[in-house]
Amino acid sequence: MNRKMRMGMVGGGQGAFIGAIHRIAAAIDGEIELVCGAFSSDPARSKASGEELMLPANRVYGSFEEMILKEKELPEGERMDFISIVTPNHVHFPPAKMALENGFHVVCDKPLAFNMQEALELRDLVNKTGLLFALTHNYTGYPMVKQARAMVRNGELGKIRKVIVEYPQGWLATPVDNKQAAWRTDPNRSGAAGCMGDIGTHAENLAEYITGLKIVELCADLTIFVEGRQLDDDGNVLLHFDNGAKGILHASQICVGDENNLNIRIYGEKGGLEWRQEEPNTLIVKHLGKPKEVYRAGVGNLYDATKAHIRVPPPGHPEGYLEAFASIYRNFARTLRSRLKGETPNPLYMDFPTVEDGVRGMAFIETVVEANKSPQKWYPFKKY
Amino acid sequence: MNRKMRMGMVGGGQGAFIGAIHRIAAAIDGEIELVCGAFSSDPARSKASGEELMLPANRVYGSFEEMILKEKELPEGERMDFISIVTPNHVHFPPAKMALENGFHVVCDKPLAFNMQEALELRDLVNKTGLLFALTHNYTGYPMVKQARAMVRNGELGKIRKVIVEYPQGWLATPVDNKQAAWRTDPNRSGAAGCMGDIGTHAENLAEYITGLKIVELCADLTIFVEGRQLDDDGNVLLHFDNGAKGILHASQICVGDENNLNIRIYGEKGGLEWRQEEPNTLIVKHLGKPKEVYRAGVGNLYDATKAHIRVPPPGHPEGYLEAFASIYRNFARTLRSRLKGETPNPLYMDFPTVEDGVRGMAFIETVVEANKSPQKWYPFKKY
Amino acid sequence: MNRKMRMGMVGGGQGAFIGAIHRIAAAIDGEIELVCGAFSSDPARSKASGEELMLPANRVYGSFEEMILKEKELPEGERMDFISIVTPNHVHFPPAKMALENGFHVVCDKPLAFNMQEALELRDLVNKTGLLFALTHNYTGYPMVKQARAMVRNGELGKIRKVIVEYPQGWLATPVDNKQAAWRTDPNRSGAAGCMGDIGTHAENLAEYITGLKIVELCADLTIFVEGRQLDDDGNVLLHFDNGAKGILHASQICVGDENNLNIRIYGEKGGLEWRQEEPNTLIVKHLGKPKEVYRAGVGNLYDATKAHIRVPPPGHPEGYLEAFASIYRNFARTLRSRLKGETPNPLYMDFPTVEDGVRGMAFIETVVEANKSPQKWYPFKKY
Amino acid sequence: MNRKMRMGMVGGGQGAFIGAIHRIAAAIDGEIELVCGAFSSDPARSKASGEELMLPANRVYGSFEEMILKEKELPEGERMDFISIVTPNHVHFPPAKMALENGFHVVCDKPLAFNMQEALELRDLVNKTGLLFALTHNYTGYPMVKQARAMVRNGELGKIRKVIVEYPQGWLATPVDNKQAAWRTDPNRSGAAGCMGDIGTHAENLAEYITGLKIVELCADLTIFVEGRQLDDDGNVLLHFDNGAKGILHASQICVGDENNLNIRIYGEKGGLEWRQEEPNTLIVKHLGKPKEVYRAGVGNLYDATKAHIRVPPPGHPEGYLEAFASIYRNFARTLRSRLKGETPNPLYMDFPTVEDGVRGMAFIETVVEANKSPQKWYPFKKY
Repeated sequence: MNRKMRMGMVGGGQGAFIGAIHRIAAAIDGEIELVCGAFSSDPARSKASGEELMLPANRVYGSFEEMILKEKELPEGERMDFISIVTPNHVHFPPAKMALENGFHVVCDKPLAFNMQEALELRDLVNKTGLLFALTHNYTGYPMVKQARAMVRNGELGKIRKVIVEYPQGWLATPVDNKQAAWRTDPNRSGAAGCMGDIGTHAENLAEYITGLKIVELCADLTIFVEGRQLDDDGNVLLHFDNGAKGILHASQICVGDENNLNIRIYGEKGGLEWRQEEPNTLIVKHLGKPKEVYRAGVGNLYDATKAHIRVPPPGHPEGYLEAFASIYRNFARTLRSRLKGETPNPLYMDFPTVEDGVRGMAFIETVVEANKSPQKWYPFKKY
Repeated sequence: MNRKMRMGMVGGGQGAFIGAIHRIAAAIDGEIELVCGAFSSDPARSKASGEELMLPANRVYGSFEEMILKEKELPEGERMDFISIVTPNHVHFPPAKMALENGFHVVCDKPLAFNMQEALELRDLVNKTGLLFALTHNYTGYPMVKQARAMVRNGELGKIRKVIVEYPQGWLATPVDNKQAAWRTDPNRSGAAGCMGDIGTHAENLAEYITGLKIVELCADLTIFVEGRQLDDDGNVLLHFDNGAKGILHASQICVGDENNLNIRIYGEKGGLEWRQEEPNTLIVKHLGKPKEVYRAGVGNLYDATKAHIRVPPPGHPEGYLEAFASIYRNFARTLRSRLKGETPNPLYMDFPTVEDGVRGMAFIETVVEANKSPQKWYPFKKY
Repeated sequence: MNRKMRMGMVGGGQGAFIGAIHRIAAAIDGEIELVCGAFSSDPARSKASGEELMLPANRVYGSFEEMILKEKELPEGERMDFISIVTPNHVHFPPAKMALENGFHVVCDKPLAFNMQEALELRDLVNKTGLLFALTHNYTGYPMVKQARAMVRNGELGKIRKVIVEYPQGWLATPVDNKQAAWRTDPNRSGAAGCMGDIGTHAENLAEYITGLKIVELCADLTIFVEGRQLDDDGNVLLHFDNGAKGILHASQICVGDENNLNIRIYGEKGGLEWRQEEPNTLIVKHLGKPKEVYRAGVGNLYDATKAHIRVPPPGHPEGYLEAFASIYRNFARTLRSRLKGETPNPLYMDFPTVEDGVRGMAFIETVVEANKSPQKWYPFKKY
Repeated sequence: MNRKMRMGMVGGGQGAFIGAIHRIAAAIDGEIELVCGAFSSDPARSKASGEELMLPANRVYGSFEEMILKEKELPEGERMDFISIVTPNHVHFPPAKMALENGFHVVCDKPLAFNMQEALELRDLVNKTGLLFALTHNYTGYPMVKQARAMVRNGELGKIRKVIVEYPQGWLATPVDNKQAAWRTDPNRSGAAGCMGDIGTHAENLAEYITGLKIVELCADLTIFVEGRQLDDDGNVLLHFDNGAKGILHASQICVGDENNLNIRIYGEKGGLEWRQEEPNTLIVKHLGKPKEVYRAGVGNLYDATKAHIRVPPPGHPEGYLEAFASIYRNFARTLRSRLKGETPNPLYMDFPTVEDGVRGMAFIETVVEANKSPQKWYPFKKY
């Protein structure tokens, strides 16, 4: 018989923003149950958070180490199946590593790790243990992103020539002093890049996910606009893809008034696509010499991969960020359940970012940071 | 200590669309647990549905009667707290009535009942028992609807003069032969009105919810466009409100190419508002002789009632239909929890449609149907 | 050989808004020459206006009577061919009548006249003299309105079921004290209706122009919102068309923050259309169960009637209000030139509103004003 | 007394697109009169074109040389005041030079010349003769571009940090064989660049015009996507401005489905702006932590420079490309008229692109072409 997958959470205590998002994303489809957590490195705060979440006290732990060890001792029908890591970047690696070493599957927020060394070690561990590892590059969970991908992969646009991907935000246009900003702008917690790591990686991931192309070299111009900040808060990048396509990647946190305006435009020999995260249920499809078409989630003949990621069949009932995030969790849970039952997972649900995407994202961070410092125009994308 | 509210569901078995929506809406915030259900009038189908939902077999019932009686016998710490009714219109009344009579709180899909007699009986029962009753007029759950309401109530627009509310859909533009269409176009299951009952009531509810005004008389022109259909699939209605404001209500299911385009425009002496369900995180605010402002969920100084219904603080991460629906459930659950704990509920969460809104919706249906047949221009809104 | 058509203007002196618009509209295509004018009922002001317009002093007249008589005496190769009347409503009739009686063709601003009696007398004169008469219902000059019309007429939408036409403005939301507002809100200069005459007629004309349908009865709810005003500043109207289609016409001058938001939605059995004057180069085309298409001026296979009204072939170079207005003048001028040359006019250019449309507009005004006072729901559209 | 400025046209005969645009632009405001032309290098075609334009036969010339010489001999009250050059790029210089040398003012389409040498010679001639020279970088004529410029110059955005300017078109996505495409893709007629010269210069001009900043170095990635084409049809460029601002310039003619989507986003320390040529009457204004504002032509307190370029005072009546183009002509004509009358020109109308902007545009073309070939990241903007 089917059962819900059991999740333990690392991080995401009171005051953390992204933890709540992960919990909602995991809960939406009724296929995952939060059974335990180490919500804070401060045991008292972890306890209080667990109480708020209505967890039994004995499943709320003072540290992820304690959680992993104690859960491992619980009977199979009770202990968590996987951990969800929602801590700042520099605390991704330790719990991920320990979980894998102790036989737990992992869902981890992005970027994969604090630096490349950690990322490669995690990749090795995943490959060695064979455990499932999902990275929450959540924006690829949107139905119309699936549609865009299917259309490109199916050749509807012809050979891809140009990709413009942007992720402008405005929230760091001035010095910001809150929990979110603090770690994101701190090289000791965020890593080698600021804006490029936090949101540039989403842009890179989205472009490669949809097109199936790989960036092979790039030219980067990163800037720190806000005085005193230590990491880039803006970056403009030119791209060369492996099929000869050209591109622009633009990510910024100083674009005053912009919210989370991740968007992508793709042009091929025969057609074009345009998608914006802020109105995610719409996909503009462009043709040579014909009117544009407004594809909408739920309308017309969509690909199976698209339909598999729509929860509200009647069109015009918008789904959003949480549902896209939830699709990563649901796909992970369904693939995990199939595996636990010894069944072949449905390929429609094997669609979630993996440790490999995580390594790719880390390589992107390394490459743009080095490219930015280089006087040469084209800098090769680092291979690992 | 806090605990999740326990929900039993009536209806929503395999193949039903709206049951899944209610389950997601109840699950999102992690404050409600689906513990049992009578998912179909066909016991085998109910059983299969429960299994799919990973419920224990002994909590899946063959009928709502069985569910209510059996659950009542369970110990207090185990039995359901409330039932959620997601059946077609003609099966709202029987489970609602029985639940109330047996001490269970109720969440019920709209419209409240099949006819006015049932509606009034439910209102009496709610008043007599003092149990909580929520009606899922879900569109009022959107954050920017809360913002619109707070702005109007706070006088930001001045005295309201004009309200234009529309709900055009296109899915019934041709004869449609599926489960959704079947009961909605059948007078024996849907009630006295088709389009006006199914979506016209949402429009009426939204207009009155935001403005705080009441329609006092109206002029209706209902039409059956698709041959052989027995209930209206289109309606144009002129409105007079109790403060002298004028209005137009337009609902249709034959507007080819329209999805779920519920939208409202409100004009006062000092300002105007515009909101569209299909892009729900945006509220256009209009001023005398000044540029329009684009209010967005999460941006700037929003009212507390707005912020209390946003789950994703960073702006630009769209929330949608499911979240708005979920807010009805969450508010109901929080108000119920407070009551069970003997605490005063937080007024921010006492904000969900009640049996009184349900009676109002039924009166709207009755009024438009009678007004449509009347040769006189203005027909008084029926009072109950 | 071809020559420019020679225009004399009545009204449109300094400070008048619409006169300048007519002059630009007439000038754009280089087919009309302003040769004389009686720009104001105040001769000194007329003179000063003519000087500003760089007209020779002897062609600037103190009154339209003087202009018509003096121009008549000029040699054929010099005298004006037609007059353009751009005065307030109550001064349309006298110059139009005198011009027709003296053999001059006429372009006249809308509405046709101050009352129905004048309108009918003008129609008789036009029919008797056989002179050309154009009414500047300028909004029908837009290319995408031509496209909409051609699509409907060609059956692309199937039988028309529903028409929603709106013209909300906000500029009279408060008492306004300027030249424009003064005459428009004065029954002695504007006529029996305010908002309905000024802009409601544009909405009526647009709906009938595109669909080819005629309104046969209507139900009107007109309001004066601003205290002290004598004519309606808002109106909601339900419509019945001659083919059984239903409709809503909404026009208002108190919709705070709205500019000149004339827009129309048309739904047939097979498809739908949506057009907004404020973004006039776009036409949304809706299909059953397929993505919407965004038709744009200059893109794809457009009808000849559409292409004949586009001046800027490359798409994406927006044309606007002045060009649409100019198309009325150009079509009038080309038809007139053909006639003067004894040639058969090109049907593509015989497309401009006539005295017949003007009578229809006057009948609309009469009908809505009477319908508004009537207690019966449906009021027949008056026939003349 | 005032009189119309008299224009002679070079190029723009039958079948040419841009000549008709210039004629409309010159005609709109009634301040310029087309009095003569050499419409084609083929005298018969020139003659036929002049006849169509209803010019007297003796003012239609077989070549620009003939026109300049013959017009020079006409009496002062009759001969043309200036020439308008609307030929392909390689035929800008000869008539411009000859006109200046013979005392005629000049309006010239962009880019200024075929190569830098010609451009510098024209600049010298303009400086030496003191004659007026306008370059039709028409996009700076839009009212909301004026508003954007005034806002930036007035410090409303704070110090500018980032500029993103794009000009994607799709019309050359495949091999195109028409008159327009032929010369634009031919190095012998177009110059050193294709896309970058044709539309990249518009983008460069727009960015510098609004911000008042100068590009000091850039990094260019130009591509020829369509096989067999000899000039770039796509380009991505990173920009560094003289105040430290960063930027992206993206121009392309292979963006399938894009029309003339020139657009610009500007971000400063305090605010942001967003403008799109395809909906030119709207300017989005972004603030730190407050709702966006939608500035519209005609609404609210706009700068004088904005209002001076609006012809249709009531908001919501769209003006477009032709009006923006016309503003270049009108401003040129008014400045010229003031000068001819010996008056000080109104600074509001001295606002049109000059030969200096033309040299700048030529330098841009040279710089991107050289930068594209360079392996170094940053290439200095060439100074002349």
